Amino acid sequence: MVRPSTEQPCSIARSLEVVGARWTLLILREAFSGKTRFAEFREALGIAPDVLSERLSTLVEYGVLSKEPYQEPGTRARYSYHLTEAGRELWVVLGALQQWGDDHLPRPEGPTIERRSRNTHLPLRVGFVDPKGKEVDLDDVQMLRTAAYPTTT
Amino acid sequence: MVRPSTEQPCSIARSLEVVGARWTLLILREAFSGKTRFAEFREALGIAPDVLSERLSTLVEYGVLSKEPYQEPGTRARYSYHLTEAGRELWVVLGALQQWGDDHLPRPEGPTIERRSRNTHLPLRVGFVDPKGKEVDLDDVQMLRTAAYPTTT
Repeated sequence: MVRPSTEQPCSIARSLEVVGARWTLLILREAFSGKTRFAEFREALGIAPDVLSERLSTLVEYGVLSKEPYQEPGTRARYSYHLTEAGRELWVVLGALQQWGDDHLPRPEGPTIERRSRNTHLPLRVGFVDPKGKEVDLDDVQMLRTAAYPTTT
Repeated sequence: MVRPSTEQPCSIARSLEVVGARWTLLILREAFSGKTRFAEFREALGIAPDVLSERLSTLVEYGVLSKEPYQEPGTRARYSYHLTEAGRELWVVLGALQQWGDDHLPRPEGPTIERRSRNTHLPLRVGFVDPKGKEVDLDDVQMLRTAAYPTTT
């Protein structure tokens, strides 16, 4: 398999090659909620074992999850899956999807999960921030092409 | 079609029912770069027309894009597709995916797109912010289950 980083100039497209397949972001949601074992992911999601296995392999290959052996008495050795630092940074992606769903596809019961600061207990949103850690309004955000932007010939 | 908002308690899952299909986030990337017409999306992405048509319909159905008729002299009436306010708020999701790809799947040429403030020209990141607009470190973020969280019986 060719690593997507060599293929796609667009970093959105590269990210989607790792996390864009059906189920992958839901597998990561479960990883963030503390699940580590194949059977736990399978039970939480009702996902076919071959699909789960393929998705976990991709996430390990790209360094989103690390795979560690474990063994319970009287059983064969198995693997558990743990978010790496790179994986943990996908929290921003999941938080952004969660926020959009809560804002634009709300349910009468309200959100099932709240994002809060551990320190201040204030509710948190996902947004654009400048290097001083100050939020910037969506109207103030611009996307600029760099010299690395592909030119059509 | 049942609207996912009635089906999935998890807002991440609901968002993915709207934007999680293959191609959809790349179609939105093109919409953010100013494309509005079927032929423009098709040419930019090399996507099969029937897939593009289905994805655009879903985005219109969920209020991410609005569909507006236009007609050029001597041709039949066609539709163009425009980001709604709800659609525009998906910029946070795309920005988060872009940032993760730039951070964790970098290319030697560097990023093709930079996120900057229109006002200050400072580079922007996507992150968690509190109600005062102050960035909160990933280590300080917690996800808490609310009373609406589904219980297993």
